[in-house]
Amino acid sequence: MIELRGKAVADALKEKMKTFLDQVDELNRPKLAIVRVGERPDDLAYERMVLKNCGAIGLPVQVEAMSEAVATEELIGTIQRLNDDVAVQGILMFRPLPKHIDEQSVIESVAVEKDVDCMNPENLQLRMVSDERAVAPCTPEAVMRILEHYGYELEGKNVVIVNRSTVIGRPLAIMMMEKNATVTICHSRTRNLAEITSRADIVVTGVGKARFFGPEYFNENSVVIDIGINFDEKGSCGDVDYEAVAPKVAAITPVPGGVGTVTSSVLLSHVLPQAFY
Amino acid sequence: MIELRGKAVADALKEKMKTFLDQVDELNRPKLAIVRVGERPDDLAYERMVLKNCGAIGLPVQVEAMSEAVATEELIGTIQRLNDDVAVQGILMFRPLPKHIDEQSVIESVAVEKDVDCMNPENLQLRMVSDERAVAPCTPEAVMRILEHYGYELEGKNVVIVNRSTVIGRPLAIMMMEKNATVTICHSRTRNLAEITSRADIVVTGVGKARFFGPEYFNENSVVIDIGINFDEKGSCGDVDYEAVAPKVAAITPVPGGVGTVTSSVLLSHVLPQAFY
Repeated sequence: MIELRGKAVADALKEKMKTFLDQVDELNRPKLAIVRVGERPDDLAYERMVLKNCGAIGLPVQVEAMSEAVATEELIGTIQRLNDDVAVQGILMFRPLPKHIDEQSVIESVAVEKDVDCMNPENLQLRMVSDERAVAPCTPEAVMRILEHYGYELEGKNVVIVNRSTVIGRPLAIMMMEKNATVTICHSRTRNLAEITSRADIVVTGVGKARFFGPEYFNENSVVIDIGINFDEKGSCGDVDYEAVAPKVAAITPVPGGVGTVTSSVLLSHVLPQAFY
Repeated sequence: MIELRGKAVADALKEKMKTFLDQVDELNRPKLAIVRVGERPDDLAYERMVLKNCGAIGLPVQVEAMSEAVATEELIGTIQRLNDDVAVQGILMFRPLPKHIDEQSVIESVAVEKDVDCMNPENLQLRMVSDERAVAPCTPEAVMRILEHYGYELEGKNVVIVNRSTVIGRPLAIMMMEKNATVTICHSRTRNLAEITSRADIVVTGVGKARFFGPEYFNENSVVIDIGINFDEKGSCGDVDYEAVAPKVAAITPVPGGVGTVTSSVLLSHVLPQAFY
């Protein structure tokens, strides 16, 4: 069994970004703008991580910290200024926003091409029709990068995705199809789920139920990508019962340490020119 | 074997539209605007058919016939006038347009909510994320209406669609998923296609190859929906070898006389208020 650890994928991606950025004069490098409203501890922790990662690869970053009392119009004004700023190539805004703000309008004000976290629904829509202007949602792209990093070809493979959401399952199905995989999307109403998943070459699980998938859902050649992040008495775990399943499949991502470990690097890669990623 | 004839589906839909329109005062009925550039025989024949169908159900229609020499700007001007005309609820423009016209810009100028033929790519994009503002592409919707008319429940069913295009396979997969079907999308790079299709409850074929699918692709309980329209020495035929397959499956659409027979009625239904369809 091969453990498909996310760290190796994220490290390789960061190294590639650093090499790219090292070749660009510091003044001409693409720049990330972080938009933070208020000072929620979660947001501050995430911001510190992003700043650290940006520093490590040499990606310039500016933080637009706004008062928790900011009005919707003022926040949109800030985003429009960043949209128009030719020095800024990516905009990352922390959510959720305070309740008095019209979050949907704010999200839709982010320029599609600078929307590195794929918040603007237009990006998801463009991705679904394989429009090359689209920025991909980070979790599905992380799945693709893990498979690519560990050398799994998708051409002609049977892939089962257990998630039909517009942010995960649907765009991931399209991305897999673009690589010529044959894709089946399963969900809570699927009958004979174990029969379907156990026939597949690659299974992606995203159901949000701790240790839902036991060994009966897989075969000895299964490549298992676990998108789930669940919490129980022992800490965080995936949708797959890792201890029971790992010894019986060909490869599996751990949780924690799998897909989730790759998404923040994927997000940063979206600040770089499209030719990079 | 049940032959899933399109005419019964189209007739039922027309009857439903007629009943709806009969209850609306003629001056307040929704209206279809046809935009025709030049006088191509194909367009004129299609126009006559649409006018006849509109007449039969009592749907008002106006034709905007423009010179073949019309400039892109003038054509877009006409469409914008129709977009702004509160009496017009649907716009149908015949294509292809003459070569000197920027067809893409013209298509994108059609207001999303009046785009009854789902020409504007924004409609396809919205459909893919199940946005309720979207108008569905006519062929996938015709497939859904045939299955509904003949009483095939989709909940929990295994559906295989052999087409991954943005206008057919992808939106149809989404529409099937919304009805809780488990959907597999196959295509030219799929391995073991017959193995996959013969396991499914419902198979939708759209490969554009005359009589490509023989009996080995199905089982005795298969419901087969053939989207293909191909031409050979004997006339038009589908992707399925009808004569060989029909006796061995549960139900199948003929070609001609199947899906294609339903699409023009579906298009007209998009002129009616969304609550109707």
